[in-house]
Amino acid sequence: MSAISVGLLGFGTVGKGVYETINKHQGRLQAILGKQVKVSAILVKNVDKHDLPDKDVLLTDDFQKIIELPKLDVVIDAIVGKEPGYTYLRQAVTRGCHVITANKEMFAHHGSELKTLAKEHNVSLGFEATVGGGIPIIQTLKQLLNANKIERIEGILNGTSNFILTSMREEKLSFETALKIAQEKGYAEADPENDIEGYDAFYKAVVLSELVFGKTPEWEKSTRKGITDISIEQINIASSLGLRFKHVASLEKEKNEVRCTVKPVLVGESHPLYRVEGVQNAVSIDADIVGNISLQGPGAGMFPTASAIVEDLIHLGTNDFPAVFEEDEAEGIEGGLPVWALLGEADHAKLPEDFEILGRISSDAVIVKASEEAVDSLDDTTLIAYQILGDHGFAEVLAEQVQPV
Amino acid sequence: MSAISVGLLGFGTVGKGVYETINKHQGRLQAILGKQVKVSAILVKNVDKHDLPDKDVLLTDDFQKIIELPKLDVVIDAIVGKEPGYTYLRQAVTRGCHVITANKEMFAHHGSELKTLAKEHNVSLGFEATVGGGIPIIQTLKQLLNANKIERIEGILNGTSNFILTSMREEKLSFETALKIAQEKGYAEADPENDIEGYDAFYKAVVLSELVFGKTPEWEKSTRKGITDISIEQINIASSLGLRFKHVASLEKEKNEVRCTVKPVLVGESHPLYRVEGVQNAVSIDADIVGNISLQGPGAGMFPTASAIVEDLIHLGTNDFPAVFEEDEAEGIEGGLPVWALLGEADHAKLPEDFEILGRISSDAVIVKASEEAVDSLDDTTLIAYQILGDHGFAEVLAEQVQPV
Repeated sequence: MSAISVGLLGFGTVGKGVYETINKHQGRLQAILGKQVKVSAILVKNVDKHDLPDKDVLLTDDFQKIIELPKLDVVIDAIVGKEPGYTYLRQAVTRGCHVITANKEMFAHHGSELKTLAKEHNVSLGFEATVGGGIPIIQTLKQLLNANKIERIEGILNGTSNFILTSMREEKLSFETALKIAQEKGYAEADPENDIEGYDAFYKAVVLSELVFGKTPEWEKSTRKGITDISIEQINIASSLGLRFKHVASLEKEKNEVRCTVKPVLVGESHPLYRVEGVQNAVSIDADIVGNISLQGPGAGMFPTASAIVEDLIHLGTNDFPAVFEEDEAEGIEGGLPVWALLGEADHAKLPEDFEILGRISSDAVIVKASEEAVDSLDDTTLIAYQILGDHGFAEVLAEQVQPV
Repeated sequence: MSAISVGLLGFGTVGKGVYETINKHQGRLQAILGKQVKVSAILVKNVDKHDLPDKDVLLTDDFQKIIELPKLDVVIDAIVGKEPGYTYLRQAVTRGCHVITANKEMFAHHGSELKTLAKEHNVSLGFEATVGGGIPIIQTLKQLLNANKIERIEGILNGTSNFILTSMREEKLSFETALKIAQEKGYAEADPENDIEGYDAFYKAVVLSELVFGKTPEWEKSTRKGITDISIEQINIASSLGLRFKHVASLEKEKNEVRCTVKPVLVGESHPLYRVEGVQNAVSIDADIVGNISLQGPGAGMFPTASAIVEDLIHLGTNDFPAVFEEDEAEGIEGGLPVWALLGEADHAKLPEDFEILGRISSDAVIVKASEEAVDSLDDTTLIAYQILGDHGFAEVLAEQVQPV
């Protein structure tokens, strides 16, 4: 009985974690899959840099040598960037290989094409590792979707930006110092833009949108804002109101369009994401029948991500893309204007009439209700607006706490 | 194409939720299962008490009439108590019906026999609804078990006792008043013993133990304590230390034995269960590869439980009991004595030598390290000991905050 032959693309942190986990769990994999799992080949950038104890693994910098192996059952994508990942996985699927990917940027851009191609070739396509590292977000959503319509998802999907925000608040650090520590600890890349500007979280939200709503978010209705404008002074004002800054990705379906927002927001103690600190990731899911479910865990790292990939390996052959139904169309999330904290020179602020002032907090903050458009068109450059997430009850409690005008 | 014929046992809160959810989701169920799902018969205690709009549903107080229906594919158990549920489900499995149960007491006692019987008859056995209501705990554990060994589970598995503890702390209520409110809100039964003494949580922990460790906890190593001894004074002392009372069920494997504990404990802000309030349920899972994952959501209620049952309905025919492996035996959770808060007349307390005093808090609390046996044999009746959950780092931080002796 021949082993399941795996081609592994990339041998960085994630790739090494996958290789080790597969080797360590042979007994378990064999018991579940009925066969051994053997990493036959690894694609690396520089062959001379790596030295594997297992000499019968093909270590190569040429993908063609892998895709032309006489036996190749699964290709695992542990490289980054849209290309060459997408081209390689297309070739793998076309050859009839199952594919598993941890590459969120590639999958956010080409997920739906790969899904279609995988269906045509009757192979499975695992992407649990693209979102939330070791937290089984994808499987949980698939499970919930069997009986529920998902109405909204809010998540902290990037551990680096969450680590920076947590460090700033807990250690009273500037953004720059917190970023430097994140880089020293290996949480942030030398070029941190992907994390702190919200690109990484946005890619992950796009993957979730396609899974849950069956479509990509509308680009012109979507927002992506980074956390670089947040100052320690703003964090202190928020703390005095019992609020914390979080870099939150949210997905909402309005009529037939999906709107994706990645931006820094303020959350209160009753919000499921309030206590998600450091490099942790979490998602809060609102579903029509079950209500709110939240999941939290390690969003990145060698072994959490490897765990997600190995979980996908177990599901080889179960090609279960959940169906997305339009049967009972949503009326949309119940209305009411969003609540915002305007931070800055709040005592000088003359706000337009379409701002309902809920309360003024001394000189540096005012809590308002206003539409997103009204906030966007606010031309007072001494004020920065942060949305306060939470239900309407929460906003009212907050308004009671602050002094009304 | 004939519909999937369902026999529903029980038409209380959960049964009604299942009936409504199945009817509401016909389109979805048909798309996924390829067939309509039809509730053919409902078992009730008193036929005269119920009036169904759908007149071709057999409403009966006689299970034999249901099990002898010419066509019966699935039996859903939404009744309570070991019997007659177990007998009915045995009959159903023996006839070749798939079964789905929400009955934790029955399943804690007879789960393993039913699993064996279901395997013999090649039918599926769904029990997602037995633990954590609408939170997909069972599926998540199955998913994690594919790549991980689970080392420990801690959970708030009973919404009633958690609601009482939350109300006592937030509203400064006595246990009796909080219980009365829980009863008025319909969270607690007229006879609340099952919830407040921890039986319900213990049944759920047994179900998790069999899933995760493949065995029932050792009874003589297990503990079940209720929350009736907790006073508002104790809650206030705990709050002053930054700690909250939670009624926690925990499962740990030591060597080849599983130890189950349900008891009130104290948790600090960094613990995953600290912010789980009201009727919410949550589990915190420590797994060897992925690390700590936590899930939170509605642990009971008509539609959350119905959602879990309908999710099981989707998995009909996938008879995936996860294999449990002994291959790489655990060294056990890393050692160190547990940390306890001794509440009561702490300044008079003369503690035995096997208690390491970490700090004394004025007159009514002392923080100690001691073995469970030492605490059990403490014969000072003016003190009550509550374990403080959390890692060792947390205990050290707490010890620093309190005044050392």
